[in-house]
Amino acid sequence: MKSNGLSKKLLSSLDHFIPDRRIRMTRVAEKNIKAAITAVGGYVPEDVLTNADLEQMVDTSDEWITTRTGIKERRILKDPTKATSYMAIQAAEKVLTKSQTAAADIDMLILATITPDMKVAATAAKVATDIGAFNAFAFDLQAACSGFLYGMSVAAAKIEAGHAKKILVVGADKMSSIVDYTDRTTCIIFGDGAGAVLMEASTNGYGREDDYLRSNGVGQAYLNIKAGGSLHPTTEETLAKGWDAIYQDGKTVFKYAVSEMAGAAQKVMERNGLTPQNLDYIIAHQANKRILDATQKRVQVGTNQLLTNIQHYGNTTAATLPLLLRDYEAHFKTGDRLLFTAFGGGFTWGASYYTWAYSLK
Amino acid sequence: MKSNGLSKKLLSSLDHFIPDRRIRMTRVAEKNIKAAITAVGGYVPEDVLTNADLEQMVDTSDEWITTRTGIKERRILKDPTKATSYMAIQAAEKVLTKSQTAAADIDMLILATITPDMKVAATAAKVATDIGAFNAFAFDLQAACSGFLYGMSVAAAKIEAGHAKKILVVGADKMSSIVDYTDRTTCIIFGDGAGAVLMEASTNGYGREDDYLRSNGVGQAYLNIKAGGSLHPTTEETLAKGWDAIYQDGKTVFKYAVSEMAGAAQKVMERNGLTPQNLDYIIAHQANKRILDATQKRVQVGTNQLLTNIQHYGNTTAATLPLLLRDYEAHFKTGDRLLFTAFGGGFTWGASYYTWAYSLK
Repeated sequence: MKSNGLSKKLLSSLDHFIPDRRIRMTRVAEKNIKAAITAVGGYVPEDVLTNADLEQMVDTSDEWITTRTGIKERRILKDPTKATSYMAIQAAEKVLTKSQTAAADIDMLILATITPDMKVAATAAKVATDIGAFNAFAFDLQAACSGFLYGMSVAAAKIEAGHAKKILVVGADKMSSIVDYTDRTTCIIFGDGAGAVLMEASTNGYGREDDYLRSNGVGQAYLNIKAGGSLHPTTEETLAKGWDAIYQDGKTVFKYAVSEMAGAAQKVMERNGLTPQNLDYIIAHQANKRILDATQKRVQVGTNQLLTNIQHYGNTTAATLPLLLRDYEAHFKTGDRLLFTAFGGGFTWGASYYTWAYSLK
Repeated sequence: MKSNGLSKKLLSSLDHFIPDRRIRMTRVAEKNIKAAITAVGGYVPEDVLTNADLEQMVDTSDEWITTRTGIKERRILKDPTKATSYMAIQAAEKVLTKSQTAAADIDMLILATITPDMKVAATAAKVATDIGAFNAFAFDLQAACSGFLYGMSVAAAKIEAGHAKKILVVGADKMSSIVDYTDRTTCIIFGDGAGAVLMEASTNGYGREDDYLRSNGVGQAYLNIKAGGSLHPTTEETLAKGWDAIYQDGKTVFKYAVSEMAGAAQKVMERNGLTPQNLDYIIAHQANKRILDATQKRVQVGTNQLLTNIQHYGNTTAATLPLLLRDYEAHFKTGDRLLFTAFGGGFTWGASYYTWAYSLK
């Protein structure tokens, strides 16, 4: 601490007179922490499923898909012996390599996913062990398309509370494992992918600034996989009915998504003094180009501020936010204001404001 | 702040010379928070499945079950229209009622479960909305029998970081929905149930003291539901093979469970100066009486210190810890030292040390 001209003796005498202050000072050093994203990585499978391919599979067209969703192609993890963990591991390992972090130093790993490898046990435990993070605890977080946003919020709290120093937050979904490729309303939307971030205590004052997160169970009826749970355990009957594949009432989901995603973004902007002028980037869940366009209009930012990669990957559920970070990382500079926002099944939604903590060379 | 004889003028001049100290002091008040459990509740279904009932269903006996597992009966949620959310809601509502907490004041709800109502969307969102917690965000946490322990740790961080004020952590599993009642190695073990706790900032200095949490993906092979995920999506073939029901290699799980659960408990005891003499209660996952006995011996506590209710409910997975709290709440006094410990599928395990924050009248 700089003494600014105060003698060491005076400071020392103060320490004697006001011991409470000394004790509290010690705790400040431990507790006054801001969490920051310090590295990003991602992985998408090599196999590409184009709109032209889909034209051969269901009654649709490139023009229809492009106009409604903005999607031109998605990646598919075709190898049936590889599941969500495979992609999550690739993404997590990239983060470790880029940040030169030893896997043994990871305290915690959160895997946001709706497509775990198995129904039991947590895929996160496999991912953590396979990358060598044997000092971590790991769990799966299920909040559909908001899973990664929720996971960042949990990781930030763990770091700010002083419980953990290095956390991997991974979003990964093998959506092709739950998509019915005869259902033209859903099969055109989803793709496979994974992304990950490392979160640590900020060393320069930049990092997590605010969160506004919400959920509403009304959404269960409009975006779901009805079977495979304790309400309708999978049977031959549920399989025949198609209840084990993802179902979406697109119109209702669209209505809620625009209202809640933009509403959360606006709330976080207002209470942090963010404006379309001083905000640098919006990292929004890539569900549908029309939702993104509507959100952009509501929040009144320019098209260059609201980042997109949906044209390449479709909706990768828990992976969209970290894949955006990976694709645009080179553009971000220390101190840039990033607003994350997502909406998904549950319903779950929210917005998080981060000041970006680093620049790539 | 007491000045202890220092003149106001001197303090004022100090504030001028070392402004950093003033700023930091303000933040301490906000951040130096300890999370505490402030209310508990639970729910088990009325229907009882006794060992005598099981004798009629599979080749087993009351004597065999009692000797090996300590279980005499379990509760089963028989109504097929009611799933895990039903029990979670009952448990959560009891916590709200007991603590006279308005549902609208809940900031976050974590549901630890391996038996969500549906594969998608998060059951937590339904639970939060059905109890009226419309200002909360909610997600499902999957870490099997350690799910509740992990959930408490996440909730504690959220409170200690100042992100949330009131959090419901719920553990609920309708295990009967994933048990094969022709498999005598598993059907005798599991039962249905739910428990919940309210977590808030401590007002008396008691609460969460320490956590030691770990996971190891090696466990995926020994305790799982192979199908229903992205590796083996459910098909008629997986159903025929029994891959959609819970599988356990009991011997291997037993070996790891005793070693890791007791090891975690010992680690937390050592680093917090806890001894069999000054520790009041161990709240251990109720998987199996033999695991509990072995843990008790390793940790060297008395039988009255290691609490059990497995005889009544069997293994309710994410619900065992909060159901123990519910059943023994009247015994706990302010300042009592409680050591939570769990082990489960994943593998996942750990121990958490709490000083209990209240006494019932």
